[in-house]
Amino acid sequence: MKIGIYGYGNLGRGVECAVCHAADAELVGIFTRRDPASLQVKSGVPVYAAEELPNFKDKLDVLILCGGSATDLPVMTPALAADFNVVDSFDTHAAVPTHFAAVDAAAEKSGHIALISAGWDPGLFSINRLYAAAVLPDGADYTFWGRGVSQGHSDAIRRIDGVVDARQYTVPVAAALEAVRGGEQPVLSTREKHTRECYVVAEEGADRARIEREIKEMPNYFADYDTTVTFVTAEELAREHGGLPHGGAVIRTGVTGWDGEHRQVIEYGLKLDSNPEFTASVLVAYARAIHRMHGRGVCGCKTVFDVAPVDLSPLSPEELRAHIL
Amino acid sequence: MKIGIYGYGNLGRGVECAVCHAADAELVGIFTRRDPASLQVKSGVPVYAAEELPNFKDKLDVLILCGGSATDLPVMTPALAADFNVVDSFDTHAAVPTHFAAVDAAAEKSGHIALISAGWDPGLFSINRLYAAAVLPDGADYTFWGRGVSQGHSDAIRRIDGVVDARQYTVPVAAALEAVRGGEQPVLSTREKHTRECYVVAEEGADRARIEREIKEMPNYFADYDTTVTFVTAEELAREHGGLPHGGAVIRTGVTGWDGEHRQVIEYGLKLDSNPEFTASVLVAYARAIHRMHGRGVCGCKTVFDVAPVDLSPLSPEELRAHIL
Repeated sequence: MKIGIYGYGNLGRGVECAVCHAADAELVGIFTRRDPASLQVKSGVPVYAAEELPNFKDKLDVLILCGGSATDLPVMTPALAADFNVVDSFDTHAAVPTHFAAVDAAAEKSGHIALISAGWDPGLFSINRLYAAAVLPDGADYTFWGRGVSQGHSDAIRRIDGVVDARQYTVPVAAALEAVRGGEQPVLSTREKHTRECYVVAEEGADRARIEREIKEMPNYFADYDTTVTFVTAEELAREHGGLPHGGAVIRTGVTGWDGEHRQVIEYGLKLDSNPEFTASVLVAYARAIHRMHGRGVCGCKTVFDVAPVDLSPLSPEELRAHIL
Repeated sequence: MKIGIYGYGNLGRGVECAVCHAADAELVGIFTRRDPASLQVKSGVPVYAAEELPNFKDKLDVLILCGGSATDLPVMTPALAADFNVVDSFDTHAAVPTHFAAVDAAAEKSGHIALISAGWDPGLFSINRLYAAAVLPDGADYTFWGRGVSQGHSDAIRRIDGVVDARQYTVPVAAALEAVRGGEQPVLSTREKHTRECYVVAEEGADRARIEREIKEMPNYFADYDTTVTFVTAEELAREHGGLPHGGAVIRTGVTGWDGEHRQVIEYGLKLDSNPEFTASVLVAYARAIHRMHGRGVCGCKTVFDVAPVDLSPLSPEELRAHIL
């Protein structure tokens, strides 16, 4: 399959690497809204200005969209579904229905297929929430994130006056995890599920007490959590907090039996050294799937819920039944 | 959906309970090769002799087959796919291609849909092996079972002369699990992955040393494992080992990045108080899926790989996108 990448941030670079490692994929080019000459492209594939995309209308099987969910993808995905099969990683959970409707209208009209919200949450975590709830209808769901870097929360700290740089880790509360894993169904507040650790580089002479207070009181981002703030040097931040690890767990505890006498626990967990590279790997697997589905005449907007596992694998159905089932 | 159950052992009883708890399912009857009057049926649904099944040809949306994989299902599933949409839990991994071919021929001919090998392994574990390998192509798979009761191994011990009853637990080796979870890709022998614990009730006066030796030397079942044998009274066995717990984990550790510099670990785990009730819950979810797929004109033999997650849930696609994605 012939793949194009639109956007070349952390995610775009991860997709580039994943496509180059996939035996059944060929990377045709990277498309950018920046000056193509300004991009350092590891794989050496051609870089094109975004305006050139219409010239690639019949030269790409799937275009993987690596824009942001806040402002890029709500416009980009419907627009590009007019000319291409596309995959995105739209991750604003609350806005999924709106995004789906816009993308579906565009893709149905053009006869293309568009898969939205691929990645791990939304994505693999969502699939596991669905499977677990379908199998254990009498139960409760828990999603824990971390220990890992939240880029949105790190950005929020960076916007505070006097902050040079910052890295925020989301950390699940061990006691809550243990209770859920043990099959209990505790009611957990936001504060009881996760803590937030912030590593902050402050400007020289900045009022650290004020910065710490502004972080801890920030609504939505930090106010509802037990938050720790540690001031570090720029060197320490680069050395100790340079990576983008993440992970988490989806746990469903349920009961079966006439009197609900048997506890059943399903847990799906990820431990990721590189969040963007893992997300990229998921996008490439879903690019394979929608390329196949489009070949069977499927069009419109889809999510990971609509894709049968068989379509994700480079192996044939016969091989999968013989060796993986 | 109208459901029938064929076979009323541990699994059949679990399916009965799961169907009665599913809001969108109605249990029409239980079919048995035994004398119907001899069955104590918890739900009170009618019990019919297996010979009466042809009279239910148009009265069942799905017939769930709860026979054994050794001799029942290879005959039962293709035969019943001539008249019904069926789900089975065929679990002889090596014989799946043969079983698939026989069932596919029957179901294609009759225009029915037959889903084979549902459960957790094969089943949910298989799905997770597929997803994980598709997302992390450069990696290695590990499946651990237990701690849990292996009914096949318990039966094998019971066939030894002088044994009244027995219960066998399969136990993952903690050190192996730890190494794999840490992202290493160790090469593990059978002995290094699992141990086997046997609790045995011997006849009075039986030669316990001989029984222990016969267990430990039994080819395929025990010879390749570190096996412990503990003799207990019938009362102890009933009191301490009366349940059918099981579980396990599918772990894939892989790398991403241009030089494979980032470790990524995916783990799917189950902790089950009741293995047959959990397997039954999976069968009912897949009954829902194939009923829907048949309504869209799909026929032939399918596996869990062919079923999109959306079809398993009682929720609508809109609800799933809004609340689970």
